[in-house]
Amino acid sequence: MSTRLARVRIVLSHPSHPGNIGATARAMKTMGLDQLWLVEPRSFPHPDATARASGAVDVLDAARVTSRLDDALSGTVLVAALTARRRELSAPVRDARAAAAELLDAAHHGDVAVLFGNETYGLPNEELQRAQLPVTIPANPQYASLNLAAAVQIVAYELRLAACAPSRHADAATPATWEEIEQLYAHFERAALDSGFLDPRAPRRLMARLRRLFSRTRLDREEVQILRGMLTALQRKVD
Amino acid sequence: MSTRLARVRIVLSHPSHPGNIGATARAMKTMGLDQLWLVEPRSFPHPDATARASGAVDVLDAARVTSRLDDALSGTVLVAALTARRRELSAPVRDARAAAAELLDAAHHGDVAVLFGNETYGLPNEELQRAQLPVTIPANPQYASLNLAAAVQIVAYELRLAACAPSRHADAATPATWEEIEQLYAHFERAALDSGFLDPRAPRRLMARLRRLFSRTRLDREEVQILRGMLTALQRKVD
Repeated sequence: MSTRLARVRIVLSHPSHPGNIGATARAMKTMGLDQLWLVEPRSFPHPDATARASGAVDVLDAARVTSRLDDALSGTVLVAALTARRRELSAPVRDARAAAAELLDAAHHGDVAVLFGNETYGLPNEELQRAQLPVTIPANPQYASLNLAAAVQIVAYELRLAACAPSRHADAATPATWEEIEQLYAHFERAALDSGFLDPRAPRRLMARLRRLFSRTRLDREEVQILRGMLTALQRKVD
Repeated sequence: MSTRLARVRIVLSHPSHPGNIGATARAMKTMGLDQLWLVEPRSFPHPDATARASGAVDVLDAARVTSRLDDALSGTVLVAALTARRRELSAPVRDARAAAAELLDAAHHGDVAVLFGNETYGLPNEELQRAQLPVTIPANPQYASLNLAAAVQIVAYELRLAACAPSRHADAATPATWEEIEQLYAHFERAALDSGFLDPRAPRRLMARLRRLFSRTRLDREEVQILRGMLTALQRKVD
């Protein structure tokens, strides 16, 4: 567990307030994270950062400061980025809990990063696009303005819970990737259309129902193969 | 949902730093909580509290200040209290997630409270004993010292998730019975045999794998009907 948490980089892009940097270090250490990266912080080091870090000055002292975001992301296998609300994104937005599970799965293979934007203006689009995984923290739609270190605290907490969770697949099955699961849904849809079960003129909510069903479990790769193999066998008979 | 969150009181006992009171108000509002109670705060009101409250000054302004803890707990139906580590407690300690679910269940019946102690010395035993539900936030055992407002943020976040969680069956779907689920497995097996996907002389572990997959989710009746309907449609083409 601690190995994977040690592979998580918390990356603050252009933080304005040094107090938030210190509070971020503290939030990280309470959850067992220690890789802090700072991209062009306005003021760092700073006494406010040290004060707010409390017993996590070691994390602060080890923080890496860079002028380019890409330096902080270099060598990672998965990058998540916090975003306040759904924008025009290619990838679907995950909530913090789902993202934590995906990040820790990827951390089996190497470093992963979670990217947080500036306190006032968030992440510019060109930085957000560096991330494969847009993440949102569920919040009050009338006031969703979490403090930067508070957002880090929640993400770090979810990462720790995900790291400590007994893996659903004690036998270390490989989780299916997002693409594999999307291909499974596409296969289900084709089979439903081919067999006449799904009327394309009145699709009802079939695909939404299947997505809801399978998103409650976390499919592993072999399970996806079994389901698709069976669909293929049934379709072959059809042809 | 909002009704139950509105019934949650966040009670800070003897907070030392007014900045933490402001940050607590902000953490609460981001998650839709608004009842803040302060028991003998060292300094309040205070400009640091206002500054850190950011857009949650309304929560701060509405905070009730009292000299006795019992005033803040009066009229509640359930009191939880944050505690760093297990002490000699009569009640078993819950983690934040489990406690949030219990608090929201109780909030159907009236106000509930979550009690947080002083930044340095926590809750004295006589105050902790006022609570029925000792709660701990999972943390790094080498450094579990969460900032006060950060602890409030996590508890408020878990309360919001618990309040928003679609009970798994948001539309009050009827869970499938054991018989219906067994019939589904039998149907899968027939379809797998008919289609040639399953070789009866070498059945491998197909049915065991399917059982494991579907037992991780709790199928509702309509989902079973969808899956069986699709199998029937595919088989009909076969015949």
